[in-house]
Parts: sequence; structure tokens; C-alpha cells
Amino acid sequence: MKLNCDMGEAFGAWPMGLDEQIMPYIDQANIACGFHASDPLTMSKTVALAKHHGVTIGAHPGYPDLVGFGRRNMDIASTELKALIQYQVGALQGICRAQGVEVAYVKPHGALYNTMMKDFSVLETVMQAVSELDSSLILMVMAIPEVEEVKVLAQKYGLQLWFEAFSDRLYSDSGRLTPRSQPLSVHQSFDLIEAQVLQLSQFGTLTTESGTSLAVEANTICVHGDGAHAVDAVKRIRAVVEGSNG
Amino acid sequence: MKLNCDMGEAFGAWPMGLDEQIMPYIDQANIACGFHASDPLTMSKTVALAKHHGVTIGAHPGYPDLVGFGRRNMDIASTELKALIQYQVGALQGICRAQGVEVAYVKPHGALYNTMMKDFSVLETVMQAVSELDSSLILMVMAIPEVEEVKVLAQKYGLQLWFEAFSDRLYSDSGRLTPRSQPLSVHQSFDLIEAQVLQLSQFGTLTTESGTSLAVEANTICVHGDGAHAVDAVKRIRAVVEGSNG
Amino acid sequence: MKLNCDMGEAFGAWPMGLDEQIMPYIDQANIACGFHASDPLTMSKTVALAKHHGVTIGAHPGYPDLVGFGRRNMDIASTELKALIQYQVGALQGICRAQGVEVAYVKPHGALYNTMMKDFSVLETVMQAVSELDSSLILMVMAIPEVEEVKVLAQKYGLQLWFEAFSDRLYSDSGRLTPRSQPLSVHQSFDLIEAQVLQLSQFGTLTTESGTSLAVEANTICVHGDGAHAVDAVKRIRAVVEGSNG
Amino acid sequence: MKLNCDMGEAFGAWPMGLDEQIMPYIDQANIACGFHASDPLTMSKTVALAKHHGVTIGAHPGYPDLVGFGRRNMDIASTELKALIQYQVGALQGICRAQGVEVAYVKPHGALYNTMMKDFSVLETVMQAVSELDSSLILMVMAIPEVEEVKVLAQKYGLQLWFEAFSDRLYSDSGRLTPRSQPLSVHQSFDLIEAQVLQLSQFGTLTTESGTSLAVEANTICVHGDGAHAVDAVKRIRAVVEGSNG
Repeated sequence: MKLNCDMGEAFGAWPMGLDEQIMPYIDQANIACGFHASDPLTMSKTVALAKHHGVTIGAHPGYPDLVGFGRRNMDIASTELKALIQYQVGALQGICRAQGVEVAYVKPHGALYNTMMKDFSVLETVMQAVSELDSSLILMVMAIPEVEEVKVLAQKYGLQLWFEAFSDRLYSDSGRLTPRSQPLSVHQSFDLIEAQVLQLSQFGTLTTESGTSLAVEANTICVHGDGAHAVDAVKRIRAVVEGSNG
Repeated sequence: MKLNCDMGEAFGAWPMGLDEQIMPYIDQANIACGFHASDPLTMSKTVALAKHHGVTIGAHPGYPDLVGFGRRNMDIASTELKALIQYQVGALQGICRAQGVEVAYVKPHGALYNTMMKDFSVLETVMQAVSELDSSLILMVMAIPEVEEVKVLAQKYGLQLWFEAFSDRLYSDSGRLTPRSQPLSVHQSFDLIEAQVLQLSQFGTLTTESGTSLAVEANTICVHGDGAHAVDAVKRIRAVVEGSNG
Repeated sequence: MKLNCDMGEAFGAWPMGLDEQIMPYIDQANIACGFHASDPLTMSKTVALAKHHGVTIGAHPGYPDLVGFGRRNMDIASTELKALIQYQVGALQGICRAQGVEVAYVKPHGALYNTMMKDFSVLETVMQAVSELDSSLILMVMAIPEVEEVKVLAQKYGLQLWFEAFSDRLYSDSGRLTPRSQPLSVHQSFDLIEAQVLQLSQFGTLTTESGTSLAVEANTICVHGDGAHAVDAVKRIRAVVEGSNG
Repeated sequence: MKLNCDMGEAFGAWPMGLDEQIMPYIDQANIACGFHASDPLTMSKTVALAKHHGVTIGAHPGYPDLVGFGRRNMDIASTELKALIQYQVGALQGICRAQGVEVAYVKPHGALYNTMMKDFSVLETVMQAVSELDSSLILMVMAIPEVEEVKVLAQKYGLQLWFEAFSDRLYSDSGRLTPRSQPLSVHQSFDLIEAQVLQLSQFGTLTTESGTSLAVEANTICVHGDGAHAVDAVKRIRAVVEGSNG
């Protein structure tokens, strides 16, 4: 079980996230590509930091909406979406090549991620974009119950998948995240987060909002790099995962 | 002698240039990368057009100044400038790879081009950026009298150079373009343009504003893809060059 | 019956529309405010042109999506939408005040316009934004069959309305525009356009796609300022309207 | 003696500065207008905060360079610069009018501020922009030894001036700020800052880097709203100024 985290979300003079403190504890860095966050210099620094810690680099492309941080849905036609993704991943590949490292995977960001996990025609466009660019790039998607359907699509485009689960979110019985507007949707206690990670790592299951056990086939867990307790949380999650991996 | 032309300078809903009509007559397309002009979808279409006509693709990175079309000088620190170039070239490489073609060269745009041809510390930053990214990329620069100095720098960074001359601009005796503010700085007559191209192709010289002959070691001529007479001009230049090449 | 037209849709180096040729023939100029098109200098020139021809100035605010020309829907929260509108209208008011003229009305652009005409909660946010800013600003909306409902909302916010109809679009029986994807949705013939304008001006009705006559309470007709035949079309529409007005 | 501070420099999801903690202690808020920082929603919130604390509102327009925070010089023609300023001030006026408050003054930001204080042709363009927009707007400039020359220009454009001095910067003997690259250019000790403010308030003088006393005719002092000690610093400066004012 690996840990992935969004990294390099600063923009110009505006910092964001505790990248330097978090990077030592994660395996995979989802690096923003300048459309919803980041800029070329920030990308260059973030790649250097990931390289220094031997962290696997992923491209984290988003909608072209800096002021909305890529969190708002945009009606973007599929030909344009393909080009947006190839542009952003290519840009990060350029920054990486200049430092002698490589982009290993792609994980779409924010509204684009949510949309593709709900609307498989968008997911297919994302797959096509990545596959055309470089079919050795791995696509990171959410571990959802409809995983077989996602695997069939990936096969069509010759892509390998990584599946992620969330450490601090309450799941519904249908295997989706409960909406943030719901009171208990985000785990506030370290103990609950630890328990969820442990259950995921050891048993490949999650406990949903109704208390049911749900099988979740994940090989990476998404952790957060900002907020007051982010560093403590990621250290504890790391410890749980190391115990389970070991 | 080759012909190069700025291509793909549309932006979103705003067209620019006669790309479809010009592309058949040029050898090298300098494709804008989204910072001073263009956007991912426009880049994708422009690459497809270049591929269709077998035109060599170059990246045409510029300052991050869409509204100013990259024509205004900006004080950008060298570390950031390097990242800006690697980002833009990488983005175009992504778009190209998705279509099975390659970026062969880099030609900086507008104010960045002018600045690097005057201030060799900026030229060196550009060379470093390109060399770090991929030292098989060729850098296209202006054929200036200080060409030996430029070659020494390029050697330091392991880069090959292409030198360009201008078909429709009046040169000063110092081998630079006379400023556009000067009355005769841009040749209005086809005959004058033809004569300049012929002289460049056959004798490797130009006639400067004082009537002096100036040696210019160019292997590509910059032509323009917009304006009412662009298509006619490029056809005539093509014919002259073919005659000379042949 | 007045004629309104989108004006000032250039952006930086990219021209758009035949503003100088069209401005003499219209009554109301919907001037883009820099979010979906235009920039401060273009706005300043467009205001000068409108002032020169005595044309009434309207603000034409849009979604923050330059590359998409404000034509793509964006999920923007109402507090932000209010601020976006007040910012854009205020900016044009600044440009106008500097030239001794005034913004008389507001007409939202593109996807924002379409969304507010379908979802009255968005329309209400637009009204609130305009009313808070300056309740003497008039809001221009589409003349739809649900006009009474729109009037009740406007009254709530103390706003006066102008209703517009389209000269070159085929209407459905429900009083909405037929989608552009439909073959006959845009009138290609001048005669059809003239007939629609004449019917609107003289009888206050339109003929819908089924051939039914539909009452349309419009006091302004939207004409287009770009395309090969824009100038001819607007001259003929002007003549029809003058005849009817006279 | 008043205190002014840059406020509202967040952008979208990126916070900046301790606006809520600083606002109670200042008299004049220089509010960013969306070109170098801020966005319409942030501006709206910042205006509400200033209104709540009865703080005078100033527009803080900058170069169109978000990623560079308006700190990089840009060669912008005077007609465009005028439009940029009128657009930004107008936009803030729109946001203010919607909340029943007014913009009282204009203080240019960053590179634009530095350039206009060095190159009086740029200062004159700024004055013209503000004067055309609304000659009751006050222009805030740096209190420099060439103050009489600045006053003559302001009179030409019918503008009133406010002069500001800096609390934490070491001045050269020529009455300019020593460059940040110089070791002692920014006062690190509260005591030094307090002493400079006290001397400014009580005697209208500053002690320059050579230890000379320099007359500085300032009626407002610029304080900073970000950094670990910003709140403590502004409280102590407030206390000094209150003592002197009282």
C-alpha cells in the first residue's frame, strides 16, 4: 500500500501546503500542472523536492480555472479536454526531463476527477488522452465498486491503473464519498483515520456510513498535505501502512 | 535555405494568421505554446496541420503575457525563465507525442527573442533551459554579425544552432533590424523582398540601409503568415528559394 | 424598437467583429468587460467609438473563461457571481466615467445569459448584483413567454427591464431559441431575417418552427457584428426598424 | 499621521496576509484590484471588512501579472496604462458602491509604484488616469525629496496627494529606500521601527543610512499585514502614532 498526496499547489507569491515536511513520508506526489494551481517555477521546485526524496512523480492536470482551483465543473468538449491533459502532462514531463526524472502516472484533479469517476465518457476521454500521449503512463483513479467496468475501459486504451482510497473520508454504502456538506463526512479524529487505513491495508475493506463492511481494492491511499495537523496525520498513516506492508 | 513561419497564434475564439494556406509553402513551423498566444486545442490542430504537410515542428515559447502577445519586455529571473521555457516546450512535446511527431527545434518569441539577441546572459539562460530539457533540440537564433560568439555559447551547452534571416526587413550596417518606427524598415514591395531572398540564398549577403553588402550566414528565412498579401509573398519567396536550392 | 449588438470583443492583439462599421447602425452596444473577451484598452477604444456615434452603452459581463469565450457553463456560487458582475460592470463604469459617458444597462453574456434565462435563481442573483451596484441600471433579458415572472422578480429588486428578441434565430413553440445544432436554427437568408424583424416591429409576434404565431414583447433586437454579411444585414435590419419606428 | 496597509491580497483558494487581525489597527486599506492579486469575491470580502472597521478604502492597482505579483517591470504604453488603472479602480468602485462605501484614494502597487516614483512621465500617466476617472480621488505617493515637483504635476491634473513614509525600511541619503539586497535595508527590530515612526510623527524627519537627519513630509505610514510579527508590529506602531497624534 502506497501513500499519494497533492503537491506543488502554490501559485506565484502564494504558498500552499507543507510540501517540504510532507514529501519525506509519501510515495507518490500528484504535482499540479499550472491550470488549477502551480506555475513553471513552482513545478520545477516541486519536482526537485520529489526527486530528492525519491518520490514517484505523477501529473495532476485540472480544468483551466486558477481562481476556482479547478474545483468547479466546466463543460469542456472532449477534443479540448484531451488537448488540455496532453498539454499539462507534457509540460510536467518537460520540467521532469530537465531534471533527469520521469512522470510515472496521471491523476486528474478536483472537478475533473469527480466528473470522470461519475461519467465514464469523460473517463474514456481522459484515458484516450493519456494513452495517445504515452501508454506507459499509469492512470490513478478512485477505487469504486464499478472497478471491473473501469478496468475494461483501461484495457481498451492499453493503460495500467492504480486505485486509490481515502484515509479520512466517510464512505456511503455505494462505495462513494459522502458529500462534504454531511456532518461526519470527514474524519476529524486521528484514531478513526488510523483505523480506516489499517482496515484498508490489512483486510482490503472499509466500514461505510451504515456500519457495513465494503471491499475496496486500493493500492494507494490519498493523504493531505495542508492543514494544521497534516504532518502528524501523514506520519501516523505512514506508520500504519509500514506495519501492514512489512 | 529553409522557410520558417510563426504558426498556431490563434487563441480560443480568436483566429490569427492564414495557417492552412501558408503551411504548404514552409519548411519549419514555429508553434506558439500558450503563454503569449495559442491554447492546447489550437496547438493540437496546428501540430496536425504541420504533420499533414510534413513541416518540421518548432516550439515558439514566449513571456507569460497573452494580452501583450509576448511583445513587452518582462524582468523575469533566470531560474523562472528556464522553467517557463521547459514548461512550454514540454507542453508542445506532449501534444506532438500524442500525434506521433516530434519537436525538432526551439525559437523564442517576440520580446524574449529580441532580449536574448541583445543580452547574451539571457541567451545563455535560454540555451541552458533547452539543453537541460533535451540537447538534441536545435535552437533557432538570428543570424547576427556576432555569430561566432553565439556559436561558442551553444557549444558550451551542447546545442546545435539554426540561423535565420528576415525576408522583408531592412537591416542596419551593424547587421540588426532597423526599428519598425523607421519609415523604410519593412519592405512593402514584393520585388524588394524577392531580391533580398535571392541575395541571401545565392550569395549569403544582404544589402543594408547604407547600401553596403553584409555577409549573413543564414540557413532559414523567416516569413509571415498574416496580412492580406501573406500567401502571395510566401509563394514568391518559396519559388526564389527553390530556384536557389535546386 | 432598438438594435443592440455585442461590441468590443477583441482581446489584445486579436481583433474580432466589425465594430467601426457596425456601430453607426445600432442603438445599444453590449461592451465586453474583460472576463470572456476584451481588455482595458479595447474597452476604452470601444467606449470612445460608442460615444462618437451616440450609442447607448451596456455592460456585457461574462464568466471568467477567456479561452472558452464565456460560452461554457461554470458552477459559480451566487456570492461569487454577484462579485464577478459588480466587478465587471464597475470596471466598465470606470472606463466610461473617464470619457464622460455612462453605462446605461447590463446584459449578461453567453453561458451566463443562457443559464439565467433557464434558472431563475441565477437570474435573481444577477438582479441582486445589479441592484446593489446601481438600481438605475437597466437589465436586458430575453423576451420569453414567462415574461411576467421575470417582471415580478425585477420589481423585487427595483430594476427596470429591456426585453430583446433575435433577428436571425428560429424560435421553438415554447418561445425559446431552437438549438444551433438543429439545421434551420439560424436564418441564412436576408429575406427571412427582414421578415422576422418586420413582424416583431409591427405586430410584436414571431413565427415559430411549427409556423405558429407567438407574441413577443421586445423593445430591442439583437444583431450580430461579425461574419462576412454582418454589415449588410444590420443595414437592412436598421431600414426595417426605421420604417416601423417611423 | 495615518497608517496604511496593503489588504485583500489573497487570490482564489490562496490566502495572504492577516487582514482580519490587522484591519482594526489601520486607517487606510490599499485594496488589490485583481491584476496582481485578489479576485472579485476577495475584493468584496475585503471591502466589507474595511467598512466594518471604518477604514478608508483605497484602490491598489498593479500590472497585469498575477504570477509575478505585479513586482516585475512591464513595458506598457501610456494609453494602455491609463486604461488598466481606470479599469481596476472602476472595478473596486463597483464593489464598493454595492456595499454603500466609496473609494477615497489610489495607491499604485509594486513595480508600477516604483516605476512612477522614478520616472515622472509614468507618474503623469497615473495622474491623468486618476484625474480623468474622478478628480476627487486622492493619489498616494512616496514622500520623496522631489516632493515639490510631484505637487506641481498633481496640480496640473487637479489631484490632491497623500504622502507616505515607510516604518521598517532604511532610507538612503537621497531619500529613497535602500535596496532590499542590502543587509540592513529592512529593520528587523521593533525598537528601530518604533523609533523611526516616532521621529516621523513628532519631528517629520528620518535618520538615513549615513546617520543624517532627512526631512520627510508624510501624512501616512505604510505598515505590513503579513509575516509572523505583523500584528505585534502594527499594534506598537499604532500606539506610537496615537501618542504623537494625541
